[in-house]
Amino acid sequence: MNRTELTAAIHAKNSFLCVGLDSDISKIPPHLFSFTDPVYEFNRQIIDATKDFCVAYKINTAFYESCGTQGWESLEKTLHYIPKDIFTIADAKRGDIGNTAQQYAKTFFETYPFDAVTLSPYMGEDSIRPFLEYKEKWAILLGLTSNAGAKDFEFLQTQSGGKVYEEVIAKCASWGTPDNMMFVIGATRAEMLTDIRHIIPNHYLLVPGVGAQGGSLEKTFEYGANGEVGLLVNSSRDIIFADAGKRFNKEARSKAHQLQKEMAGLMSKKQALSY
Amino acid sequence: MNRTELTAAIHAKNSFLCVGLDSDISKIPPHLFSFTDPVYEFNRQIIDATKDFCVAYKINTAFYESCGTQGWESLEKTLHYIPKDIFTIADAKRGDIGNTAQQYAKTFFETYPFDAVTLSPYMGEDSIRPFLEYKEKWAILLGLTSNAGAKDFEFLQTQSGGKVYEEVIAKCASWGTPDNMMFVIGATRAEMLTDIRHIIPNHYLLVPGVGAQGGSLEKTFEYGANGEVGLLVNSSRDIIFADAGKRFNKEARSKAHQLQKEMAGLMSKKQALSY
Repeated sequence: MNRTELTAAIHAKNSFLCVGLDSDISKIPPHLFSFTDPVYEFNRQIIDATKDFCVAYKINTAFYESCGTQGWESLEKTLHYIPKDIFTIADAKRGDIGNTAQQYAKTFFETYPFDAVTLSPYMGEDSIRPFLEYKEKWAILLGLTSNAGAKDFEFLQTQSGGKVYEEVIAKCASWGTPDNMMFVIGATRAEMLTDIRHIIPNHYLLVPGVGAQGGSLEKTFEYGANGEVGLLVNSSRDIIFADAGKRFNKEARSKAHQLQKEMAGLMSKKQALSY
Repeated sequence: MNRTELTAAIHAKNSFLCVGLDSDISKIPPHLFSFTDPVYEFNRQIIDATKDFCVAYKINTAFYESCGTQGWESLEKTLHYIPKDIFTIADAKRGDIGNTAQQYAKTFFETYPFDAVTLSPYMGEDSIRPFLEYKEKWAILLGLTSNAGAKDFEFLQTQSGGKVYEEVIAKCASWGTPDNMMFVIGATRAEMLTDIRHIIPNHYLLVPGVGAQGGSLEKTFEYGANGEVGLLVNSSRDIIFADAGKRFNKEARSKAHQLQKEMAGLMSKKQALSY
């Protein structure tokens, strides 16, 4: 999916919600274990319940890998079940030298045909470049993450006066374009989005951390939205594990709808202000 | 496998060689495609041919993931085929927030019971901590990598006067011990090993980049070895793809033996000097 299509979907649905399928098998409602593939069945029902309110699904590969080959089968079936007009992200945070990076790009753009994959930039340009050579595919780079550990290295002051995450964002942005690259910016750092928007005014930002991790949707939008919105705000646990029993899909739908309504409100308020 | 056992294996075999199973399916000798699982058959024969001369095998997960579930099956069978007295590394370079990191630790220490997994430190302490809670398992952190892209961020000067990779190594080392943590240090930067040994005198270093990437074994040993050797030097393509045809296993054995003899020479020279 290209940027024009993604932006159109956001405006058509009045939503920039990404639903995170961190489908931890140990948290799946017990009644689903009568199905041969409980994780897939869970995802299928979550997708049915939330697809009207979101523009993207993000599959966190860790929760599938930990189940071995069965997990990869659940991942594959889930990916193919997602409607074609919804953006798909493999949250895999890969990063390795060139010939290995090529294999990861093949994994997440061909073997499993996602629209986008998250990447760790630590190893530099040759670890990212192979992902940028695919047409209408996206590399989503870790910029400023939402976790406590972000302070360890991302916030290191560099000699040029900035912080490591700022240098990472600026340099990575020079390798691609806003049409094939996004950045992960945690919602728990929403107040930093203004400065980040000075570096990358036009890139889409994938924003985790709203909800369970304490980030604010309103602040994220206030400081992070650009003219075409330019945000995908992710919510995982708050939606998919809203209920631990048979009402899980209904509660997920309700949570997703609630977030979509908040997003629609923020979008229309901004549009009104711009007249 | 714990550190005492690893060090004992190195001295018993007079080798600190790690063979990298970057088993790219497109480079496997044609005659192996008559087997139901050509990648596994390739690995099986490579292991038979090289196990006398190495102390570790490193499985680069990218080459297996790109083949989908079939690839993970090849990986699993390969892991179980490796003799129990040889150290096993999942070269996966994972790195994510705490609850996701737990899933990755489960993947590579339980679902696939490797001794060690490589990790990217960009996201900080909570992305590493879950791996350190397993007994007799190892987190191998990216310190200074062997690729050209290392210059982009690893070499950034920080305000405290060092470089990012030095701060990464020093801080990561404080989270674990030389008994549960190693660092990846590329052989193409062998001259920097002296300074790195000032920061982490006792940790094992996993050193890629000898051979195909141009690093020198002799320099790596000269600047990087400590009292118990403290090195695992990896060679992948130079060994496993030494021959493209039916002699692949014989040529792999010959290459591994040659490296082992060089290593034995370096070890005995150092031992002689220490008397």
